[in-house]
Formats: sequence, structure tokens, C-alpha cells
Amino acid sequence: MATEPYRLSATQASAKIRAGELTVEEYARSLLSHIEKRDPVVKAWEHINPDQVIARAKELDAIPPAKRGPLHGVAIAVKDVIYTKDMPTQHGSPIYAGDAPKVDAGSIIVLRQAGALLLGKTTTTEFAATVHGPKTVNPHATTRTPGGSSSGSGAAVADFQAPIALGTQTGGSTIRPGSFNGIYALKPTWNSISREGQKIYSLILDTLGFFARSVEDLQLMADVFELQDDEAPRAEFPVKGARFALLKTMVWPQAGPGTQSAVAKAAELLRAHGAEVEEMELAADLQSLPEWHATVLHSDGRPTFLPDYRAARGQLHEFLASHVENANKITRRAQLEAFDNMAAARPRVDRVLAGYDAVLAPSVVDEAPEGIASTGSAAFNGLWTALHVPVVNVPGFQGPNGMPVGVSLIAPRYHDRHLLTVAKAVGDIFEAEGGWKSAL
Amino acid sequence: MATEPYRLSATQASAKIRAGELTVEEYARSLLSHIEKRDPVVKAWEHINPDQVIARAKELDAIPPAKRGPLHGVAIAVKDVIYTKDMPTQHGSPIYAGDAPKVDAGSIIVLRQAGALLLGKTTTTEFAATVHGPKTVNPHATTRTPGGSSSGSGAAVADFQAPIALGTQTGGSTIRPGSFNGIYALKPTWNSISREGQKIYSLILDTLGFFARSVEDLQLMADVFELQDDEAPRAEFPVKGARFALLKTMVWPQAGPGTQSAVAKAAELLRAHGAEVEEMELAADLQSLPEWHATVLHSDGRPTFLPDYRAARGQLHEFLASHVENANKITRRAQLEAFDNMAAARPRVDRVLAGYDAVLAPSVVDEAPEGIASTGSAAFNGLWTALHVPVVNVPGFQGPNGMPVGVSLIAPRYHDRHLLTVAKAVGDIFEAEGGWKSAL
Repeated sequence: MATEPYRLSATQASAKIRAGELTVEEYARSLLSHIEKRDPVVKAWEHINPDQVIARAKELDAIPPAKRGPLHGVAIAVKDVIYTKDMPTQHGSPIYAGDAPKVDAGSIIVLRQAGALLLGKTTTTEFAATVHGPKTVNPHATTRTPGGSSSGSGAAVADFQAPIALGTQTGGSTIRPGSFNGIYALKPTWNSISREGQKIYSLILDTLGFFARSVEDLQLMADVFELQDDEAPRAEFPVKGARFALLKTMVWPQAGPGTQSAVAKAAELLRAHGAEVEEMELAADLQSLPEWHATVLHSDGRPTFLPDYRAARGQLHEFLASHVENANKITRRAQLEAFDNMAAARPRVDRVLAGYDAVLAPSVVDEAPEGIASTGSAAFNGLWTALHVPVVNVPGFQGPNGMPVGVSLIAPRYHDRHLLTVAKAVGDIFEAEGGWKSAL
Repeated sequence: MATEPYRLSATQASAKIRAGELTVEEYARSLLSHIEKRDPVVKAWEHINPDQVIARAKELDAIPPAKRGPLHGVAIAVKDVIYTKDMPTQHGSPIYAGDAPKVDAGSIIVLRQAGALLLGKTTTTEFAATVHGPKTVNPHATTRTPGGSSSGSGAAVADFQAPIALGTQTGGSTIRPGSFNGIYALKPTWNSISREGQKIYSLILDTLGFFARSVEDLQLMADVFELQDDEAPRAEFPVKGARFALLKTMVWPQAGPGTQSAVAKAAELLRAHGAEVEEMELAADLQSLPEWHATVLHSDGRPTFLPDYRAARGQLHEFLASHVENANKITRRAQLEAFDNMAAARPRVDRVLAGYDAVLAPSVVDEAPEGIASTGSAAFNGLWTALHVPVVNVPGFQGPNGMPVGVSLIAPRYHDRHLLTVAKAVGDIFEAEGGWKSAL
């Protein structure tokens, strides 16, 4: 029996559609039928309208082959902090329940122009800014969190409800759900993709990102959004002879057994495949990066949430209200120091990273914890978000309860294409030999 | 005869409304009648609906005094790159002609909650990102440009069509029209006010700003948006004994006779009133600030305009299309160097600025030039935008043709309230003795 279309990667589905072996409508119906079956369990969607999806699929099928875009028929789920003019955009907030402004985010315009089939809106924590989980569960173990804040996007991709999903990251909102759901996730270089129409938490941190079950699918996104390094990456990256650093980071004491064993195994596998893996730490005066990140986050939250605070204080999460009230009493001086220190760290860390083909670091504290009330900790992600560098979560390992655990691969700013090439080669090894396989 | 309400400052109108001497409706009718008379000449508005304004004024009048907001009835014009859910938002772009997404920018939510009366949308250059002028003329000389990109906002406030207007600045889009129109303009510290719902050009540069005919009115805005320094400013700033720096900047060779004489007169007046004015320059390695600003602007334009480029290349200004195409062939390395150098300059320049009560610098190359095809040069503004510092344009001087010329007062980041207090005292002197008076 042929693979059901919903199980295809975006790259595979795209090839079949291009070859005339699959219509966009057939593809859409397969996905929708799978979603219909699984949504009562996983609850990844904040909004999905099957009739609208089918109507759009038919429109796409009617486009003559010569006029089709590079993402013709590629199905994409959209985190619900990104505006879509034909669907509600509710930011996971009761203040915006039912709201549907007729405007497309910049990223959505690019996807539509490329012929993508937007499936619907996925759940998010409130304004992608709290760790208070939405209704979504982890598809691998429904008592556990899928992570956040891009909860629905991570879960939908892992559960074959969409091959690709848009996420965002201000702390660890893309890499963490990537790890918890056992999929690839890319946080590209800050500001390499338009954030127009994506709800703000912190201007200097927020980054649009992607989830997929293969690196090829992330590369599709990198192509359409014109991510570009100064030097074109090699077509294939040989792990043999490559040079990696293992950077456990200043947050390592927080790492649980799943992450400890994943990181050890990752280094061991790379070495077994002929790579050099050198343990490394950041300079002593950069050990405060997580604190600088937190200070900037909280102080940026003051202007960010003032409008919603004024309009509907009672419906705003206490954590976000506390930003507006400056509950932590962060002075302007402290805010600027953190902002400037983060900025000064970027070129320094770029130079360190440039000494390796990629840097290996933990993605998460551990496998996805029990319960959906909290989406877990972003302890291992904030520093990289602050540094603006591209990060890929590579799955393949498992925690003490058999849940997926990923590791992060990191490169200097604007080395996204290089990093994806590395992630492809490394991911092939980790997926084959890391010990975890998706049962979905 | 009593002053016609449209001539009042926001602070004055607010006091009269609070005292029961003026209804919001009467105030609105006075403004609308003046606008009706002047709009055929000045053309400051992209959209204004008098019926809607009157209806809102009546709603405001019906609110019981105890429930009125701090800006109750204060009339405000909004630059048309800022989303308003009850009016079109067209970004000065043919791509968005007639577009009216039902969403309010963060700044608009704050203003509505405070009881402001939003009058309408003012003209802007395309996406606030070109120097190709819209239809608006300078109200002081209708053959001349009002400046840009906040063309309509600057002209409307100078022409008594609104007491306060919202602008934005990425290069010199607030300070330049402030100077060309002979009014006060505030570019606050970067990111001190939510930019949610304000069209992006460059994340690290774009700043929401304000136009008014008095510093008190700028202070109204600073209050409602909770601009806050670490130390509360003195209630009054004595010019006598104060310490200013005169910083002509690396762009000084571009200064025309109007700016040369305004800057000389400004220093002379401050000295005459007992202040110390010390000429000063930035360090040699900061002389490239304008180039760094330009590099960041152009490279940030790549992701920013990609969506509109893909959707409607033919309707996008050639200058913006050239950003997407990276016509200047800016490498990622050069882009990051400019970005990082700008960042490193910020704390250094803050420390220099902190040695003075305020720094005096040119606002513009000269008085507003003839013609409306070009909105003029932002040569003197980009460096300050890059540095994130608050800038106030103070009017009072004039150019060779009797057009207004302002000068900039500048303070370290997050010293906005202090700067406004200084601008009040300095503005009183410049307006009284600088030599220029509005004939409007």
C-alpha cells in the first residue's frame, strides 16, 4: 500500500504534486482526515476550517503547472500569533478571542505567493510569552506537555497533521517544542525573515522559526524566505573529519538525565563517525547571558504589554502584567546594561563559533515533563536567542521515559544555510543511531 | 474674541474640556471646519471622516466626568503606517490602496483607552521608507516640502489642523518634518513605546514619535505612554548655569546657511541666558555612524520588503526593491559589522552625552527646500536614530527664505523626561528670541 499522503514530508508531497501523482485536493483531504481523527486527542489547532482548506486546494489545482509557485500545495500550519487575513488571530489571549483582522503577516504573504496551502492556526501560550500551556498535549504521550510557546505547531508536525509549521521564539519557544516533540526546528538568525504581523514580545529577541520532520523541509523554508550566507554551503557535509564543539553552557547544572545522556551520546556518535568534538565553554564574563536575556525580556515587556494592560488588565496573565508594572524593579540603567552586554557578546561569540563546523549544545532541560499546565523551561535557549545565532534542534535521543530529546546545533549569525547542511548530515546519524524512534 | 478652539494646544483644550468650558464636539467641529478650509491647500490627510469624528466626540461627551481618561477629547492625527481598526491604513503604497484591516496598533489602543479623539490618517512617503513626497505641502510655503516621511503629521500640526500627531522615524522622519514645519517633535528612546501595529522598515531603528506645537503637549504623550527615566526630572530646568554641548557632527559640511545660522544663534542665546556651551565632537572611530546607519537600513530592507516585492514588485518603489535585490551588494559580514558597531557606540555615546544637561545638534541640512517631489535629507538624524537616544526638535530659527529651522536637543537613552524639561526651558528662549514666528 502506498504511503498515505499525510505522512509525506513537504518535499515528498511537493514532488508528487509536481509529478502529477497527487493533487493538492487529495493531499489536503488526507491531512484533514488525519486531523479529524487526531484533533480530539492532540488539540493542536486553535482554528481550522476544512471547507476553506479544500476550496483553496482546488484553486491551487486549477493553476496551470507553468504558473505554480515553489511551495505549490505545500501544507503549512501557522502559530496563532501570526496574522492571517482569512482566519482568526487570537494570540492565545482571551482579550483577542474571536478576533480576525483582515491582514496577512509578512511571512504569510511570502508563503501564499509561493503557493503554500495554509491549513489553520495552531495553539500558543498567551502572546507566546508565558509558560502557561494551552489545551494541546504531546502526541507521543498525551499526559505530557508538547512544550511552548509554539505548542500546537510542534505537536501538529510531530503528529503528521502538517509537514511544516511556523513558530516563534523569544526564549525557547521553537527549539523546546522541537525537542519535546522529536522533530527538527529551526530558529534562524534574528531578523533574517520579516516579523511584520507577528505579535511582539521583545523586538530584539523575537524570531520567526519553523518545524519540520526533515531538514529538507526546513531547507524549503530557507529557500522561499531567501536565507542567505555570504558563502554558499557545500552540497553535502561530511561528518568525517568535521570539527564540532560541545558547549554544555552555564545552565548545565539544570540538565536532567535525558539531556545528559543525549548530549553524551551525540558527542560519542559524532566521534564514532570520524568527527572531532572538543568540549568548550564561553568566557567567564559571558556567563551572565541568561540573566541579561531575562532582564531584557522583562523590561521589553513594559511597553509591549502596556496597551493590553490598559485595555483589559483583568484578562492579561499576571506574569505579563508584572512586566508592565515593572514588578522586578529593573532600572533603565540595568536594562541598558543587559541590552548592551548582549549586543557586545554577539560578535565575540560569533568568532568563537566560527572556529567549528557547528557547536553542539543542549536543547532542553530534559524530555517533556508530565502535565500540560506548564510548557517547561527555556533555560538552554535564551542565551542563543539573545545572541541572534541560528539554532537547529536535531531529534534522535530519548529520555528516561522514552520521550524524545533533541540537541541543538549552532552556527554564527547568517550561517543558516551552512547550519542546515550540517544538521542534515548529523541528523541522519542521530535519527539512525540515537536510540529514539517516533511511534506515530 | 475668544481663541478659536482649533488653535488651542492639546493641554489648553484638555483644560477647557475638563472645566466644562468646551465640549469635545465643539472642539471637533472647530478642528474639522479649519481642516475643511485648509485641506485643499495643505493636503495633510490620507483619510479623514468628519461624521465619524463627530460621532466619537459625542460619545466622549457622554462619558461621565469621573470616568474620563487623561487624554479625554484630545485630538490626535495618526501617520498612515500605524494601524487603526476603524479607518483605512494604506502605508502610502499603491499595494495597500483602500486596505482597512480591523486592527489597532499598540499606540492606538493606549490613546483610545486614554480618551483621545483620533481625527484621521496623515500622509506618509511609501512605507515611511522613501524620500519621494506625497501630495502634502508645507503650510508655511505651499511650494515647499513639509519633509518626510511623516509629511502629513508635521504639516497638520503646524497648520493647526491637529494639536498632536503621531509620526515615526527610521532615518529622520520625525525630526526633519518637525524642523521644516516649525514645530516641536520628539523621537523618544528606541523601544520605549510599543511599535506593535506600526509598519516595519528596520526593527533596530524604527521609532514612534510625536509632533506638537508645545513641549507641554509632548509631555502629555510622555505621560500616557509611561516614558520614565531612572530619576524624575526637576519640575523646571534653569538655563542659567546649565551645561550644553554643541555637537555639529561629522555631517556638518552638508549644513546650509539656515542651519549654520540657527546653530550659531542657538548657542549664542543659551550663553546669553547664562548657560555654558562647549563645542564637542564624537571620537574618531564613531565618524562612520551615518554609514553604519545606511548599511543597516539597506540590509534590513531585504527581509522587510520581500513580501511586498513578491506580491507586487511593479508597485514597489525602486529604492525598496533595490533593498530586496541587495543592489548595494552588502555582505552579511558588512551588515553585522555595521549592526555591531552601532550597538557598541550606544553606551559610549550615552556616557559622553551624560556629561551635559543636553547636547545641541543640527536637525536638518537647511530650511525646507522648494518642491514636494523630494522630502529632503535626513543626513543629520540617522546617527541619533542609530544611537537610540531621545531627540527633541526645538523650533525658533529661520532660513534664508524665512522658513522655519529647528535644532535638536539630545540626551542619553531613557532620559526622555529630563530632555523634555530641558526642551521646555530652551524652547521658551528660542521661540521668543530665535527670530522666526509662525504666520499661520
